[in-house]
Amino acid sequence: MTTSYEENAVGRMIPPEVNDQPAIPFKGVGKHKPAGRKYGPPIATCAEYPDDGDKRVPDLKTALVEAGLKDGMTISTHHHFRNGDLVANQVFEAASQLGVKNLTWFPSASFPCHEPITEYLEDGTIHHIEGSMNGPLGRFASQGKMRGVGVLRSHGGRYQAVQDGEVQIDIAVIAAPTADPFGNANGLTGPSACGLLGFALADSQYAHKVIVVTDNLIPFPCIPWQIHGNYVDYVVEMDKIGVPEKIVSGTTRITKSPDRLYIAELTAQFCDVVGIIRDGFSFQTGAGGTSLAISKYFGDIMRQKEIKARFARAGSNQYLVDMLEEGLIDYILDGQTFDLEGVRSMRENPNHVNTSPFTSYNYHGKGNFASMVDVVILGATEVDVNFNANVVTHSDGYLLHGIGGWQNCLFGKNVILPIPLFRDRIPIIRDEVTTICGPGELIDVIVTERGIAINPRRADLLEAVKDSDLPLKTIYQLKEEAERICGKPKSAQFEDRIIAAVKWVDGTVIDVIRQVKE
Amino acid sequence: MTTSYEENAVGRMIPPEVNDQPAIPFKGVGKHKPAGRKYGPPIATCAEYPDDGDKRVPDLKTALVEAGLKDGMTISTHHHFRNGDLVANQVFEAASQLGVKNLTWFPSASFPCHEPITEYLEDGTIHHIEGSMNGPLGRFASQGKMRGVGVLRSHGGRYQAVQDGEVQIDIAVIAAPTADPFGNANGLTGPSACGLLGFALADSQYAHKVIVVTDNLIPFPCIPWQIHGNYVDYVVEMDKIGVPEKIVSGTTRITKSPDRLYIAELTAQFCDVVGIIRDGFSFQTGAGGTSLAISKYFGDIMRQKEIKARFARAGSNQYLVDMLEEGLIDYILDGQTFDLEGVRSMRENPNHVNTSPFTSYNYHGKGNFASMVDVVILGATEVDVNFNANVVTHSDGYLLHGIGGWQNCLFGKNVILPIPLFRDRIPIIRDEVTTICGPGELIDVIVTERGIAINPRRADLLEAVKDSDLPLKTIYQLKEEAERICGKPKSAQFEDRIIAAVKWVDGTVIDVIRQVKE
Repeated sequence: MTTSYEENAVGRMIPPEVNDQPAIPFKGVGKHKPAGRKYGPPIATCAEYPDDGDKRVPDLKTALVEAGLKDGMTISTHHHFRNGDLVANQVFEAASQLGVKNLTWFPSASFPCHEPITEYLEDGTIHHIEGSMNGPLGRFASQGKMRGVGVLRSHGGRYQAVQDGEVQIDIAVIAAPTADPFGNANGLTGPSACGLLGFALADSQYAHKVIVVTDNLIPFPCIPWQIHGNYVDYVVEMDKIGVPEKIVSGTTRITKSPDRLYIAELTAQFCDVVGIIRDGFSFQTGAGGTSLAISKYFGDIMRQKEIKARFARAGSNQYLVDMLEEGLIDYILDGQTFDLEGVRSMRENPNHVNTSPFTSYNYHGKGNFASMVDVVILGATEVDVNFNANVVTHSDGYLLHGIGGWQNCLFGKNVILPIPLFRDRIPIIRDEVTTICGPGELIDVIVTERGIAINPRRADLLEAVKDSDLPLKTIYQLKEEAERICGKPKSAQFEDRIIAAVKWVDGTVIDVIRQVKE
Repeated sequence: MTTSYEENAVGRMIPPEVNDQPAIPFKGVGKHKPAGRKYGPPIATCAEYPDDGDKRVPDLKTALVEAGLKDGMTISTHHHFRNGDLVANQVFEAASQLGVKNLTWFPSASFPCHEPITEYLEDGTIHHIEGSMNGPLGRFASQGKMRGVGVLRSHGGRYQAVQDGEVQIDIAVIAAPTADPFGNANGLTGPSACGLLGFALADSQYAHKVIVVTDNLIPFPCIPWQIHGNYVDYVVEMDKIGVPEKIVSGTTRITKSPDRLYIAELTAQFCDVVGIIRDGFSFQTGAGGTSLAISKYFGDIMRQKEIKARFARAGSNQYLVDMLEEGLIDYILDGQTFDLEGVRSMRENPNHVNTSPFTSYNYHGKGNFASMVDVVILGATEVDVNFNANVVTHSDGYLLHGIGGWQNCLFGKNVILPIPLFRDRIPIIRDEVTTICGPGELIDVIVTERGIAINPRRADLLEAVKDSDLPLKTIYQLKEEAERICGKPKSAQFEDRIIAAVKWVDGTVIDVIRQVKE
């Protein structure tokens, strides 16, 4: 079998098939030109839906049965509730009770709260997961325990795969903080408000059957209708679809670590020096503790210069909302709210805009706005000396994170990774990353607590910082410095078996992940 | 050829083909079950669109050339500017200059302002029009002067035809009151503000190439993005896309005719007597002078009963906006703004919701909200004794009106036609209508200045009015009364040649229209 592996454009060997589907090796950025047509789901007719618009069925299991749940189907869920989701586990509990086997779970992401899914992976209810596996499910896969091969996609890549028919969703289950009996839904109000439902947009548009699950049913019309009932087959009421306090997960406070604060300050300073922070610019800083500090520094610079940003791309949080309300930003273009201030602002402020992977990230559209963002701040678990980066596996080889919008954001005009030189005495900059998630040609700057490395491809940035007092180094210098302190890192040890494939934004395979040798 | 004609479910003879496309005879309401998949337009890639999102080209002709305009293509436009549109004529002027022939024009509707299009129909630039032909273009077709056969569809039928791939749009030209260089667009602001762009939604989603034309370009992002730039290929700036004072057309004042006021009052009274006007009800009254009076009477009854409506379906106008702002209505679900108060309200009030034929009318969706409206007030040029109705031709046979949302609204829970018994001494109620646009089984009540006729199928309504003092008559009595006054009307005289087909909401053919014998 290994003989038919093919080397892709970043030097990784790609198998001819993943889960019996043909795999196209990554060809380089912008090199793969799609052929064919967008996927066309079956044509429905109003004649088969209730005239009064009432699509309620008694419970989730009934809805799954009426939707025709059977062996081998692909079932999707979304992750706007993040680690507070209460719905996905119930879907597979019901499927397991119904004795259905070999399902593909196609979540927009999974979280530690989904650890009970391992039971359904073990008993054969689920064959494999296509989607981010944050934490326990990733570890489970890395241990070689999942029957099929996981497929990791970016948020934009997930939209692309659905739109292009690479993944055909049989049944989408959309948990909605507010919905009406027709299936119109939004995330703005209700006890489980999560802001928006953009990650479920493709699912609603392309799935054969769509089930909306809500704990806040209101009379028609549910406005705004972020999800259109015209795509929905069944509506299920449930006591509780999410745990609000866990919907807001991840760091929501500015870092207190002096090293991280310094990295944040350096990043903002770099952006200022090279001229990125100018009137009408746009930025995406992310939601970690360092990122929040960068937002704050951006705000300070903007106030001082008396300029404002045209838009911030978010993951929204209290800091961005403050900037919007202060008038430092014209618009927040938001893909997922990270705290309740984000939810409130999206509900109240028409300039806090809910977006979807279609508008922001889908590479098989007629453009998307990720490439218009002036500066994008991203993380990474590892970066190599060619600026290739990893966000899914750790240096010990375990798959522990999803891609999120990370690959999509690499198309921003200036991509900066502010990262510590090492974590737990393991250097971040390597000769080769464990898993390539993004090609180095799209990553422009690495900012560490010991200096800034600019990608040699960005002659313009190198020129712009020439006379500055920024602590500039080559990426090799940074790597050596880390190795002087921590020693040369060991590579992870793997079995032959592939446990997951990492897709690029265009549906090609940029890398594979193997079972960890334990 | 006539031998292969087939009689449809309302007794009209349907040819096997229209414009060389197979024609399916109307089978009865809800009887035609679609097979197959929604249309999939070609997959695009960001690699072929500018990273900075700037899709501007110098002018409309350049855009058409870059979009690959060639003989036989289908070109679409929308009619939110109604009789003030300045764009469609320019599209075909450019096509004519480029020497392109045999185009299909696929407008969501055409108006008297499009009379110059006759030149391009005559010189062969355009082969035929698929869409409403209000006024001169309809007369032109009725005179047998159009090469191909016109195809008339409801707003919902137009969405259905595009979604299902019955009409494949090669190039959509979307005139937008506000847009950004990426192609995001809305109708809310700018010198040509028309409120919304819902009629262009299908075009943006399914056309192979999409051109946005605007006279109010703003920096990205244009929010709200009623049209997504992710579907758009080119953006063209132009001095003026519409004449605002003509965008608002049709009657915008309550009728002063005593007969019409009486019809309006009777209609409202009927609705009250049968229990339609209750707390949380919904209504669609339309925009004519009688309709506006009905809205006013509805408002009076609601105030008196201290109830409110959950939503009004619109065509919005000042009267509805007043009711929304007074708190008599929770939501306006608006398909097209009919005056500038409608535009203002939609811009300012989140409860004044822009809708599209997808949400409101598409019969090949998983329901639509037309069937949820408690009472719908519609017009007709003719009604027959079986309650079949005509909205496109006059009794002299000339095609002078489009279907609009009329067919789609017939699915409302109670459909009432308030119509005068005769117009210009021509009786409206006939033994047989000139053209059947809607089957009688969906039309419940006829209200005239000489009495109310209830469709015998609606035993519930007949029961509800039993003890009322409403002036109830049979439709035969009303017909006889009109004929006593005006004499028995003559039927229109036609040539054999079919000049247009009238589609039902499911894509089947409910009737054909023939050339008028002059």
